[in-house]
Amino acid sequence: MAGEAASALGLSMAVLAEDPGDAACAVAAEVVLGSPLVEAELRALARRCDVITFDHEQVDLALLAALKEDGVVIRPGLDTLAMAVDKAHMRAVLVEAGVAVPAHIVVETGSGDETAGAVTGFGAEHGWPIVLKIARGGYDGKGVWVAGDPAEAAAIMAPLTGTVLVEELVPLEAELAVMVARRPSGQSVAWPAVETAQVGGVCREVLVPGRWPPEVIAQAGMLGQQVAELAGAVGVLAVELFWSRGQLLVNEIAARPHNSGHWTIEGSVTSQFENHLRAVLDLPLGSGAPQHAQVASVNLFGGPAGEDPAALLARGLAIPGAHIHLYGKGARPGRKLGHVTVCGDDAALVREQAWAAALALGTPRPDGLRLPEGVS
Amino acid sequence: MAGEAASALGLSMAVLAEDPGDAACAVAAEVVLGSPLVEAELRALARRCDVITFDHEQVDLALLAALKEDGVVIRPGLDTLAMAVDKAHMRAVLVEAGVAVPAHIVVETGSGDETAGAVTGFGAEHGWPIVLKIARGGYDGKGVWVAGDPAEAAAIMAPLTGTVLVEELVPLEAELAVMVARRPSGQSVAWPAVETAQVGGVCREVLVPGRWPPEVIAQAGMLGQQVAELAGAVGVLAVELFWSRGQLLVNEIAARPHNSGHWTIEGSVTSQFENHLRAVLDLPLGSGAPQHAQVASVNLFGGPAGEDPAALLARGLAIPGAHIHLYGKGARPGRKLGHVTVCGDDAALVREQAWAAALALGTPRPDGLRLPEGVS
Repeated sequence: MAGEAASALGLSMAVLAEDPGDAACAVAAEVVLGSPLVEAELRALARRCDVITFDHEQVDLALLAALKEDGVVIRPGLDTLAMAVDKAHMRAVLVEAGVAVPAHIVVETGSGDETAGAVTGFGAEHGWPIVLKIARGGYDGKGVWVAGDPAEAAAIMAPLTGTVLVEELVPLEAELAVMVARRPSGQSVAWPAVETAQVGGVCREVLVPGRWPPEVIAQAGMLGQQVAELAGAVGVLAVELFWSRGQLLVNEIAARPHNSGHWTIEGSVTSQFENHLRAVLDLPLGSGAPQHAQVASVNLFGGPAGEDPAALLARGLAIPGAHIHLYGKGARPGRKLGHVTVCGDDAALVREQAWAAALALGTPRPDGLRLPEGVS
Repeated sequence: MAGEAASALGLSMAVLAEDPGDAACAVAAEVVLGSPLVEAELRALARRCDVITFDHEQVDLALLAALKEDGVVIRPGLDTLAMAVDKAHMRAVLVEAGVAVPAHIVVETGSGDETAGAVTGFGAEHGWPIVLKIARGGYDGKGVWVAGDPAEAAAIMAPLTGTVLVEELVPLEAELAVMVARRPSGQSVAWPAVETAQVGGVCREVLVPGRWPPEVIAQAGMLGQQVAELAGAVGVLAVELFWSRGQLLVNEIAARPHNSGHWTIEGSVTSQFENHLRAVLDLPLGSGAPQHAQVASVNLFGGPAGEDPAALLARGLAIPGAHIHLYGKGARPGRKLGHVTVCGDDAALVREQAWAAALALGTPRPDGLRLPEGVS
């Protein structure tokens, strides 16, 4: 999607990809085969680019620091990336600045009884169940577990290495997300906060503006701006929020275009992808104002019997107003393969149409998320 | 732009290009180097594609007919392409069906006195000046001349070969255009008719809906649908219209996404590029409904002193609401390099912003087209 935005602006995008079949390669002007964790391959990319940016967090900060030393322009910068790749560090920065986050402690695996004692003590204080998260490398629900008691916590921790975040299971009224684009100068643009629904830690739908009153949306927006500033973000920053007990807590951040911002392609004046490119190139940002009263965006997944949205495109496109985005990835059961966005005036109708298209495209019904009445 | 739409739908686009530097190559999943006029090269493309479609009319109909014989799927079909590549044939089909077109005759060059006599007779009947157009190969004002008298007509005709259309100089109140997308089944979707402004035969701006009353817009839409049906179009068809003496006349058709439809990318529910792909793949079409009360789209050209919009991007993006599309082509004075679209509620404001962005991007002021007051 960043490649499509780059093409429209006449920008030439080179992609570092491990597999020439990766979807981004099809739309990139140049492809460098390699890994972002291998210095020579990362340098091969850098030689072709004015600016290096990212669409995931699986990066080696030391390697990026070495490139930066040699004058390679890396945006977002290393401080922002350090927060994005390490949840423990991110939490520490936010706590230091007085930003509300879920109650948590940070423990190191391999410290035996001491760690087990800390986890048990945390559970006793905040109540079981608790949440365990690896500080680095988790995504889309991977690397996150809920433990009901000390024994279960110990069993989850046993195979883990590195730093683990031990966290209260926050009683959620809603999950919100806010996207902010920020230039090197600090100039920033925010999109309206949205409501997201996750199942098993995986985002299933994004509703704009969602069910929450304007003051909550406005407060979320300000919190997003504050976090983007704290992180010194350049490019797009996604801030995932919990709305709990009348308070907004910062859960996660991502220093890149994010699933919760896909709705912006059709739903707002400027998409997150275009503003990410503008921001990392230090070009004026576009407005994040919504263009419709209501937007619903639903993620597409491979079905259990091999259902592939690419093969079902005619069914999905038959749904009025369905903007379908397929990511060019091979279908596997449960793999995220695209999303569909519907814009309009009626919250119930856009959600119904988006889900109708998703189901028509083979996406399984989500467990634990009530679909609109009319959707079959 | 078709490549960007293909990417979003997860479709794989292969491009036949003579130069690997052609802009479409940067966004295409596959590139076949070659010419559409060379059989082996066209067949190399065909082997990689389920459907072949076009973004210009410089095609060899006999060659395409041979491929079709061998089962290659070509959309639009040969009958539609025959109209699009030959203005004389196009006019004959329209006249036969009773569609109003400018008064004209068709003459063959190289017939000496007979042709000269026919041209002079036409001028005497319809009044001088008259318009001369080569039937094949003209575009963007190339291949079109205005002759003030028989001597000037003879001088223009002298170096030409092939068929020439001799046409009245229609007293224009406006030029309109209508885009229609049509599937093999005949199912079609039209976008609202738009007003276009040409300078020297080159489109400079597109205004939606323009200054014309709804009944003219509606009549233009119906005429577009009629022509698309007559042409048996599959894919997108552009119909360029003259509004003259209270009547709509069909001037030209193009059987592909067209400059007068670029506004649809941001301005309507479904872009002409997406619906062209949907139509040629026989997938359900999306709505062509406008999403804004007013849209202005202004073309970008290289400036006389080498001004290049790619180098002036920061200035253009600073204009609020400017959606900039650069085509990745090298800047040359007068070369069409992109377009900018602005959507909103106020016709004067969107036109002003679009022109402000175009001038900021180095596009020269057009001769003979009055710019909005506020634009500097």
